[in-house]
Amino acid sequence: MIRFDNDYTEGAHPKVLQRLMETNEEQLPGYGKDHHTASAKALIRSLCGEDVDVHFVMGGTQANLTIISSILRPHQGVIAPDTGHIAADETGAIEATGHKVLEIKAVDGKIDAGQISRYVEDHWNSIEREHKPQPKLVYISQPTESGTLYSREEFEAIRHVCDEKGLYLMVDGARLAYALASGDSDLTLADYADMCDVFYIGGTKAGILFGEAIVISHENIKEDFRYIIKQKGGMLAKGRLLGIQFEVLFEDDLYMEIAGHAVKMARILNDAFTGSGIEMHFPSPTNQIFPVLTTGQIEKLSKKYAFHVWEDIDETRKAVRFCTSWSTRLEDVEALIEDINNL
Amino acid sequence: MIRFDNDYTEGAHPKVLQRLMETNEEQLPGYGKDHHTASAKALIRSLCGEDVDVHFVMGGTQANLTIISSILRPHQGVIAPDTGHIAADETGAIEATGHKVLEIKAVDGKIDAGQISRYVEDHWNSIEREHKPQPKLVYISQPTESGTLYSREEFEAIRHVCDEKGLYLMVDGARLAYALASGDSDLTLADYADMCDVFYIGGTKAGILFGEAIVISHENIKEDFRYIIKQKGGMLAKGRLLGIQFEVLFEDDLYMEIAGHAVKMARILNDAFTGSGIEMHFPSPTNQIFPVLTTGQIEKLSKKYAFHVWEDIDETRKAVRFCTSWSTRLEDVEALIEDINNL
Amino acid sequence: MIRFDNDYTEGAHPKVLQRLMETNEEQLPGYGKDHHTASAKALIRSLCGEDVDVHFVMGGTQANLTIISSILRPHQGVIAPDTGHIAADETGAIEATGHKVLEIKAVDGKIDAGQISRYVEDHWNSIEREHKPQPKLVYISQPTESGTLYSREEFEAIRHVCDEKGLYLMVDGARLAYALASGDSDLTLADYADMCDVFYIGGTKAGILFGEAIVISHENIKEDFRYIIKQKGGMLAKGRLLGIQFEVLFEDDLYMEIAGHAVKMARILNDAFTGSGIEMHFPSPTNQIFPVLTTGQIEKLSKKYAFHVWEDIDETRKAVRFCTSWSTRLEDVEALIEDINNL
Amino acid sequence: MIRFDNDYTEGAHPKVLQRLMETNEEQLPGYGKDHHTASAKALIRSLCGEDVDVHFVMGGTQANLTIISSILRPHQGVIAPDTGHIAADETGAIEATGHKVLEIKAVDGKIDAGQISRYVEDHWNSIEREHKPQPKLVYISQPTESGTLYSREEFEAIRHVCDEKGLYLMVDGARLAYALASGDSDLTLADYADMCDVFYIGGTKAGILFGEAIVISHENIKEDFRYIIKQKGGMLAKGRLLGIQFEVLFEDDLYMEIAGHAVKMARILNDAFTGSGIEMHFPSPTNQIFPVLTTGQIEKLSKKYAFHVWEDIDETRKAVRFCTSWSTRLEDVEALIEDINNL
Repeated sequence: MIRFDNDYTEGAHPKVLQRLMETNEEQLPGYGKDHHTASAKALIRSLCGEDVDVHFVMGGTQANLTIISSILRPHQGVIAPDTGHIAADETGAIEATGHKVLEIKAVDGKIDAGQISRYVEDHWNSIEREHKPQPKLVYISQPTESGTLYSREEFEAIRHVCDEKGLYLMVDGARLAYALASGDSDLTLADYADMCDVFYIGGTKAGILFGEAIVISHENIKEDFRYIIKQKGGMLAKGRLLGIQFEVLFEDDLYMEIAGHAVKMARILNDAFTGSGIEMHFPSPTNQIFPVLTTGQIEKLSKKYAFHVWEDIDETRKAVRFCTSWSTRLEDVEALIEDINNL
Repeated sequence: MIRFDNDYTEGAHPKVLQRLMETNEEQLPGYGKDHHTASAKALIRSLCGEDVDVHFVMGGTQANLTIISSILRPHQGVIAPDTGHIAADETGAIEATGHKVLEIKAVDGKIDAGQISRYVEDHWNSIEREHKPQPKLVYISQPTESGTLYSREEFEAIRHVCDEKGLYLMVDGARLAYALASGDSDLTLADYADMCDVFYIGGTKAGILFGEAIVISHENIKEDFRYIIKQKGGMLAKGRLLGIQFEVLFEDDLYMEIAGHAVKMARILNDAFTGSGIEMHFPSPTNQIFPVLTTGQIEKLSKKYAFHVWEDIDETRKAVRFCTSWSTRLEDVEALIEDINNL
Repeated sequence: MIRFDNDYTEGAHPKVLQRLMETNEEQLPGYGKDHHTASAKALIRSLCGEDVDVHFVMGGTQANLTIISSILRPHQGVIAPDTGHIAADETGAIEATGHKVLEIKAVDGKIDAGQISRYVEDHWNSIEREHKPQPKLVYISQPTESGTLYSREEFEAIRHVCDEKGLYLMVDGARLAYALASGDSDLTLADYADMCDVFYIGGTKAGILFGEAIVISHENIKEDFRYIIKQKGGMLAKGRLLGIQFEVLFEDDLYMEIAGHAVKMARILNDAFTGSGIEMHFPSPTNQIFPVLTTGQIEKLSKKYAFHVWEDIDETRKAVRFCTSWSTRLEDVEALIEDINNL
Repeated sequence: MIRFDNDYTEGAHPKVLQRLMETNEEQLPGYGKDHHTASAKALIRSLCGEDVDVHFVMGGTQANLTIISSILRPHQGVIAPDTGHIAADETGAIEATGHKVLEIKAVDGKIDAGQISRYVEDHWNSIEREHKPQPKLVYISQPTESGTLYSREEFEAIRHVCDEKGLYLMVDGARLAYALASGDSDLTLADYADMCDVFYIGGTKAGILFGEAIVISHENIKEDFRYIIKQKGGMLAKGRLLGIQFEVLFEDDLYMEIAGHAVKMARILNDAFTGSGIEMHFPSPTNQIFPVLTTGQIEKLSKKYAFHVWEDIDETRKAVRFCTSWSTRLEDVEALIEDINNL
């Protein structure tokens, strides 16, 4: 079975494991107070801006629930696309910290500035607004859960609404690497740091064993953030593990190398599908692509390849997801293309 | 600087890293549904009993908050020693899930069956009990945060009270390895599984990079446990990492080998201190020892050794903690002994 | 200004205040342990069945959050119509107790057994269900927030789905009186007690100063319910106030008398609107009616009458709500009818 | 049975009920937006200072949990005496909102500035402070649960520590009336508004049916407070009930008249006990007194009088509580005195 079902099917990029080996005997203080963590933070600050705070946690749900609960007062909620990870795939993790996820209908995984603006205006125009959760934070993912991207223009419009309406803006960047590597986006890490109040740079789905780097720009969110990481169970005793891995990622541009490879493999596959007349469900320029296949086609390909069935399109067709990563081999992609051409 | 300040100052036992290397290219399903995780669970069940459920999470605070919140209804609290980790060192993680930690005064890190029984009887005898959190769960650590152990007899008495009063019993086993390896305890993993409703076998402080194995005996707690792990941010995308590490620990008895070495090193140190006429603050037979030193002695030893200042005894003396682990070298212990003898 | 904007615009039915006067000097134990409370509970049990538990709290949001948090484990959510009070009008009160409200699209304020069944089946059929809140409780309102009613048949179908899928069923009966009094429903309090696991009989909107009577049929929910009322701030020191008021309501059938009057007034109004060719937005047979008026008509009527603008229908028309109660006077209704006829 | 067991054994002062009768027919907007509520707020502002915000809720636990959860971020805790109501008598209501109550050992129900200062300094001096809840708010009761009072000097010292350490200060004034009426305190409502960031003026235990008036001085706490009241289930549909009752209390000084009477009755009783050689457990100058009686004396008095057994002193003696209120009759006090003299 050749796996295209996810970008976390292997362990880690070999350089990551090698560095863990090399540093294994170092005796270091715990809880992220070691020099590797300091150095990884410095590397990220050098890309994002010297005034940001950087923290590492183990996974995306943990990043989301720690960030969101650190920002909101009890009566406040977080606006999110209805397809956003916090709305759809985290077992109510945000609600478990006491806050409602205020869902807005997404198109191709995205919501736009106008929708956010209308939602917030409706709230403040209501004479019964005190009976509703107050929108205070906007959560979006870049790339989205559908593999699509917010353009610079769309992003700036959302930032503008947030400024206008007194909202915080956060970006779930579990797969941010693939946005950065995509030809379709000209946004840099410095741009994200500039436009977001807080965002995170995903590691788990970009070649390391586990870990997300939270980058905080807003002073209010910086305050006491480590307390909240600890309280939510996200502070690793051997915090070095996160520091070392992110050091490797951000030295010598490994992060972009990994992402660039995955996006390239995905483009090749995408072109093969569309070249065979197969429609794509979302216009995704990143490492996830969503061809629409017939049940017959799915059955055929499933014999050799693992991929994810995403959703039903009609009685005979389903959107499926193929996902690439640092470990995707060109020969596997070529094999798949041959099978696509023979569908 | 030779470090005796903790049992998590290095990465992992070399065998653990080696296995992570060897398995790195395997393409596996995520979220703990891989064959390594299955095999690690089977190894633990073979030691604890075939009818337990086993789950892996990343750290102790995460284990505690996930377990406790999975058990209690909103009005119920958890009884704990006032020196217990959940009471003293987790930034209110349990309260953040809505539950009060009902603290009982500990002696040498321990509480006894009589104290628990009186606390619970006082609750049920009170005509105003509905105005107090209802005690429903007992939390103890084995070994305790003071390095001491509950004997089989003490344990059985606590279990008996729990049965009598309708309480669940959980054991924080972040350092359980050192209890198992200590000559002072004849309790086995099967005994813990038998006497506890849920406990965990710590890996982070016993030679792996990170991870705790939660062992559940009680049917009520088994139900839907994975949902709660996910919700609390404890479900690793690359769950394999936990499975692989625990596989290594429980094949070929590595877990006991690691713990045995650490306890042996601690005994040697302990004897050196007491042989020099230095009093021990707690009677600890595990991998943490707590000599009472003068400020002068602390100053001297601090030049070469890292250790933890635990608490003030009087104006001139403090209890300190020396901690051993799989990585403690005999030559370092011998150097320290020489310096102890010259204090 | 003649008010039809709500059913809580006055204090209480005169008999309620009179009884509070008469009993004022009685010296009674606090927290609902007085004889009036016992007697009110007995009256309600005589209507609902001897094996139910009855508790009184001060308001609807309090009833909802107390009930729901008492039932669910952390990872479980409550299914509700998207127009349901807990979804739309309680400032995230349910989420503040840690639980997601799982919204289902309502028609005329109602959801049906098929929708619930599909939602729950989708959950259990998903291989990623552990990443979603688990549906465990169904919340519906009778009458709904749109004034409509679930028929006996619809109710039985929902109960059947709940049994089949292992769900609890609760009914928000803030305006249950008007369902009981409507000719369209043949469901009795005993039927609700029989079909629901827990429901409540609203007092605030049915003639008393404040108070809701929670009726619990399911043994699991009965356990320790008073603790949770206390914890959530719902236990009144002078609990007698709730007992006395519900005593008055359920002696001599005052509850039905109040509701009958309000429904009758609403029917008269309803007929006047439809008789004038005015369309009703929801088919409501209870004490709330929802005519669709032009902005001109709204402007005219607003000069003499207070009512609620509910929602926009199109550019020139809005649905509005007229609400009747125990205190609605026939002469005011007749004045309004005259003005309707002259619209 | 003549009751001295509490200050909430009757309904309300007759003037309160009378006003509820007189205003019953008024048709008013809900949720505290009526003119009575506005007028009650104005009366309280005229006593506390024009720049405070005033809100009414139904009871003390509700006031405490609403205030505290509105102030704290997730990792912060509230310092309280271990005998404080939130620590001892509210079923973990504060923990249920996610926050630890940081208990300090009280003497006669009080903690002092030095204790608070040391607690907070210990926190900030700890290198592991991020592993502990951060103290951010001080909760004290005036009078305390033991009937004792903080003097102006003690209060100013606590305020000073709060300023120095960046802490908020709140006062639980469930029985504040009796502090105001006691000859031992020269603190006025304006003083409390000046020194506290938020406090409340209890009504339930001072002659009304139910209700507490929350007075907020700090701008941060003022923001969006009504949302949080609503979310926690504390917003009464017929909010007028709170407004009307507090109007009555603060017109014509009824509040002080009620409290003055109760304190006077308590002083007479206190003198009778001490005159008979009976020791008082706490030095209480308010409406609660705590004589230490033998079991024989308790048995005798229990035949005619209801009072509260507070705690065991030794094998033969217990502290008991006698409590007076607006409704305590001089003839009942005189009867009791006669019986005291015959003990």
